Amino acid sequence: MRKKIALDMDEVVANVMPKFLDFYEQEFGKRLTRDDYWGKKIYDIPGAAHVRNVLYDKGFFRNLPLMENSQEVVKELSERYDIFFTTAAMEFRNSLEDKYDWLLDHFPFISWKNFVFCGDKSILRADYMIDDHPRNLLKFQGKGLLFTASHNTDEDRFTRVNNWLEVRDFFAQEED
Amino acid sequence: MRKKIALDMDEVVANVMPKFLDFYEQEFGKRLTRDDYWGKKIYDIPGAAHVRNVLYDKGFFRNLPLMENSQEVVKELSERYDIFFTTAAMEFRNSLEDKYDWLLDHFPFISWKNFVFCGDKSILRADYMIDDHPRNLLKFQGKGLLFTASHNTDEDRFTRVNNWLEVRDFFAQEED
Repeated sequence: MRKKIALDMDEVVANVMPKFLDFYEQEFGKRLTRDDYWGKKIYDIPGAAHVRNVLYDKGFFRNLPLMENSQEVVKELSERYDIFFTTAAMEFRNSLEDKYDWLLDHFPFISWKNFVFCGDKSILRADYMIDDHPRNLLKFQGKGLLFTASHNTDEDRFTRVNNWLEVRDFFAQEED
Repeated sequence: MRKKIALDMDEVVANVMPKFLDFYEQEFGKRLTRDDYWGKKIYDIPGAAHVRNVLYDKGFFRNLPLMENSQEVVKELSERYDIFFTTAAMEFRNSLEDKYDWLLDHFPFISWKNFVFCGDKSILRADYMIDDHPRNLLKFQGKGLLFTASHNTDEDRFTRVNNWLEVRDFFAQEED
């Protein structure tokens, strides 16, 4: 039986950072540099808590750019694994259709049967999970990979992958 | 740790049958009786395949009636178990917001963190699953309960529950 990979969307295959930077710039008149935000969440910058509210907007998740190399590596992996997109969408009612359409657009080789919109990811069973949130990996019973994001740079409890080329390398080594 | 119950929506807590009967009657000018459809799906009646298309309509899932006793028994169970609503929504893009709103309306005591919209349910990990589809129970590693629906009356591979009072009794016995 093929092994399953539970694959997060935001900050793993979908890049939310450019939209946050745009919104911050609109609000505060300053384009943040990586040094300004790396190591935290943009909405944890003092005075910027309300920036998080853009996540509730219809359309926010519809036109996010792809994370570099994610499309081609997911395509390769999908030939050997069952890929499930497992995304914590439920806080954001308005994200549901946007995420659905985004996945169909960018990953047409993954069936809608393998889309999972959820909240608490402890309900998931798979062999691997790739996620940027330690809280999701902590509850997971398979092998968890922490995908590097600005907010998780201090985390050292998990196997870390910094980008999609490292994801490709990880699975190549698993199969050796 | 509290045990998890993965709970299907359609034909388990949400009653889709009255809308199908309405639509059939509109199309064919005849109100089906239980004898006409029991043991099969309405859209498997010769000539009625297109009745299934109503599932794609925006609004179809928004105002379905509750299955009898489901609300109160789920409420009781939620005091002792973590209840996750796990519904195969992904074939129907238009169902996503409708199902979300329906759950918030009818089960306000279950957090959105415990809503799971998916396709292939083999991705789920829980202690119990209550579902009307044998294909979902077959892939499940916990204890599966088959909730009686017209289309599954011939099935004999699972523990069957015919209604929500029997679900209540099943869990009372589990805890004896």
